[in-house]
Amino acid sequence: MIDVKATTGELIDAYYSSWGSGIESFDARRLRELLADDVYYESPIAGDRQGVARFVADLMRIAADLRSPIRIVKRFESDDRAAIVYDASLPQGSIRFAEFIDIAAGRIRTITQVFDAGRYQPGGRR
Amino acid sequence: MIDVKATTGELIDAYYSSWGSGIESFDARRLRELLADDVYYESPIAGDRQGVARFVADLMRIAADLRSPIRIVKRFESDDRAAIVYDASLPQGSIRFAEFIDIAAGRIRTITQVFDAGRYQPGGRR
Repeated sequence: MIDVKATTGELIDAYYSSWGSGIESFDARRLRELLADDVYYESPIAGDRQGVARFVADLMRIAADLRSPIRIVKRFESDDRAAIVYDASLPQGSIRFAEFIDIAAGRIRTITQVFDAGRYQPGGRR
Repeated sequence: MIDVKATTGELIDAYYSSWGSGIESFDARRLRELLADDVYYESPIAGDRQGVARFVADLMRIAADLRSPIRIVKRFESDDRAAIVYDASLPQGSIRFAEFIDIAAGRIRTITQVFDAGRYQPGGRR
């Protein structure tokens, strides 16, 4: 269980390392510790969704598509928020993602994701 | 000329209000005060570019496409950085943009933009 006093930086490190290096090191159990049970996420593909189970399943599809670890380009954080830009090497090529994260009680509570959905659909679905 | 002691919040307000309400209120002169002369910007369409003249021209094309003022969804800032998510009502529909901004000497120095380039090209160009 992650310490609720973990810093934002530690939480963000743990989040991206739990899925961002691909399916071999994908850690669903760890993700369920880092994410609030009712995590709310918005993305151009998934739309608006709530709940850790669906989100972890979506992350697994992205991890399975990764050709190499994600590369963080910009990272910016405060006590209860973080904003990250990263490049992901995917079957369609390098796709840039932006994520805005809100943190509450030591866990990720909301994620707003922006990316070029015209070029990438996780797992090939639309 | 913007006061170099202007807060990040004031600079960000001024930046989005100089182009984000459409072409009628587009303010190229104000933008040239807010942006560093050698502003560096990256976007999925423009690629990597430097220089205020080209950037202001690109913003003008986006402003001309706006059907209503942009709507800021997330906003997050520190002394020298800001990260913003906004929705823009464009001919193709509502498109979500994320922008990461670095500030130096009271002006915007770099902008990293992420959006669904599959759905939107400013001014219809590719």
